[in-house]
Amino acid sequence: MKLATLKNGRPDGQLVVVSADLTRFVSAGRIAASLQAALDDWAVLSPQLSALASQLDASAISGQPFDPAHALAPLPRAYQWIDGSGYLSHLERVRTLKGSKDEQLQSTWPLLYQGGSDSLSAPTDPIVATDPELAVDFEAEVAVIIGAVPMGATRQQAAAAIRLVTICNDVSLRRLVLDDLQNGFGFFHSKPSTAFAPIVVTPESLGAAWRDNRLHLPVRVEVNGLLFGQPNAGTDMHFDFADLIVEAARTRNLAAGTIIGGGTVSNRHDEGLPTKRDGIGFACIAEARTVEKLKYGRARTPFLKPGDSVRIAAIADGRSVFGDIDQKVALA
Amino acid sequence: MKLATLKNGRPDGQLVVVSADLTRFVSAGRIAASLQAALDDWAVLSPQLSALASQLDASAISGQPFDPAHALAPLPRAYQWIDGSGYLSHLERVRTLKGSKDEQLQSTWPLLYQGGSDSLSAPTDPIVATDPELAVDFEAEVAVIIGAVPMGATRQQAAAAIRLVTICNDVSLRRLVLDDLQNGFGFFHSKPSTAFAPIVVTPESLGAAWRDNRLHLPVRVEVNGLLFGQPNAGTDMHFDFADLIVEAARTRNLAAGTIIGGGTVSNRHDEGLPTKRDGIGFACIAEARTVEKLKYGRARTPFLKPGDSVRIAAIADGRSVFGDIDQKVALA
Repeated sequence: MKLATLKNGRPDGQLVVVSADLTRFVSAGRIAASLQAALDDWAVLSPQLSALASQLDASAISGQPFDPAHALAPLPRAYQWIDGSGYLSHLERVRTLKGSKDEQLQSTWPLLYQGGSDSLSAPTDPIVATDPELAVDFEAEVAVIIGAVPMGATRQQAAAAIRLVTICNDVSLRRLVLDDLQNGFGFFHSKPSTAFAPIVVTPESLGAAWRDNRLHLPVRVEVNGLLFGQPNAGTDMHFDFADLIVEAARTRNLAAGTIIGGGTVSNRHDEGLPTKRDGIGFACIAEARTVEKLKYGRARTPFLKPGDSVRIAAIADGRSVFGDIDQKVALA
Repeated sequence: MKLATLKNGRPDGQLVVVSADLTRFVSAGRIAASLQAALDDWAVLSPQLSALASQLDASAISGQPFDPAHALAPLPRAYQWIDGSGYLSHLERVRTLKGSKDEQLQSTWPLLYQGGSDSLSAPTDPIVATDPELAVDFEAEVAVIIGAVPMGATRQQAAAAIRLVTICNDVSLRRLVLDDLQNGFGFFHSKPSTAFAPIVVTPESLGAAWRDNRLHLPVRVEVNGLLFGQPNAGTDMHFDFADLIVEAARTRNLAAGTIIGGGTVSNRHDEGLPTKRDGIGFACIAEARTVEKLKYGRARTPFLKPGDSVRIAAIADGRSVFGDIDQKVALA
């Protein structure tokens, strides 16, 4: 089952069911007023949504043409957005940037940060920066939306709570990261609105691409139309989504509709840029710059400037599974 | 106008208007399905809520007896909870505990952290800890709920966006603070669910107690029935709520329904515990312990143990303005 949220002038948008090939949609408004409402009563409502999806896929309902430009983030505002760090090679590459110390600790327990979830960006929203000198970067990630998870949950409870899978762009203002982390209270100004792909998919509908609580697909990133990276999200993910959920629930309950990010997708390699057609590359600029510093003595790849674009998609059989995140940088 | 959210078996509860003396309520369900729904359309709905409140106060509507034990947090789940640090004496007293370095920086820009907002505790919910050794502490704070604020907002825009005022208990697990801050990603495990008083009040209805974007009332804290502190929230608040909102909106929009905390209420003095009847005392245990270490060479006041209780109220003319937060520590 594939779901999306379309713009309707209201903060929560309109929940729709999207056909398996992403070409058509039908409103799910008779079943649930919003994706959050569906998540609040998932046991009752998801079979109804699923039945509607089957009818749409069988063309028993013709539906309407699906245009991702009309999509909001699947949850345009969420009660919680927690970003984890599943990929150690991302942490290793950016550690110097973040002034973070304890290497040992970070590979024993996954790092998490509490992100802002009050206004999540649509897949084609601009990345708005107040200053072109803030070192705008993207971070291509896999994210899951979960049902309620009790404090102290087991891995099994955590895995069973995964309702939907998608990808996101955890926009980062690198120039502000150090200030945020040095003041001791964690990311804040350096992490403006995270953008999401238009489509969320149930784990079952991902088939073999979803296994071991990981998404086994390349996440393809293009900057200004050029391939930047296509690391596989199922490779080198040291902490899987069950680990991240267990860690998040250590001292608290997690409400239905909580979004958990897996961290910047990152594979171990030491190729520089430009990324070759069959190369791996990077899912954020900061990692590329670190590798360049080691290889060439200095970072070559600039951060994003106003007018630059970034496109992010998870690819299966040559197709974009969740639809594309396609953002342009703009000045406020 | 005074509002509350009553338990009705659903995550967002039932919005009610409460009489000025907090004794009676009437459902506001015909005006707005929830407090968040009211905040989403505040310009249209708040006059209707206000008219209902006037009818209730004039006894044109009799209403039903208001029992705070039936209240949820006013926003039982919110899209954002940002906690600021308005009171420098709190930061100074706990700085050693938090391993936070830059004193100068902290008095120039207010510190903020992104808190979990997916499940905010009701005023009488237990404080549930998974381990009695986590050093459970309270932090009595003033909080405001705001309308939408654009990125880069001015102080004037920020002040005008303050819709509602209340108090909260930013529960802290002191034993986990250092780990959270040392990993560099900020508070997470050390800040479980924050609890809120039952009542939110519009700034206008607070009269002279709300001025200069501060609440000029003592916030009274009792631990196991004994006075622990009653610092005045309007005194020594270096950064007011407009400052905190401006800072929060530096690189992002803030959605309607965002809750901003003013930080642990803290007044400058060097009295130790026990707090005398006319003393000032403290709004968290950590501060008391720091003062004790300086005065007596060691901390005397223990953190909360299972079975201990904490009661927090803002007091005007001997009455609890927002109703009491009244929590007991329990083991998970």
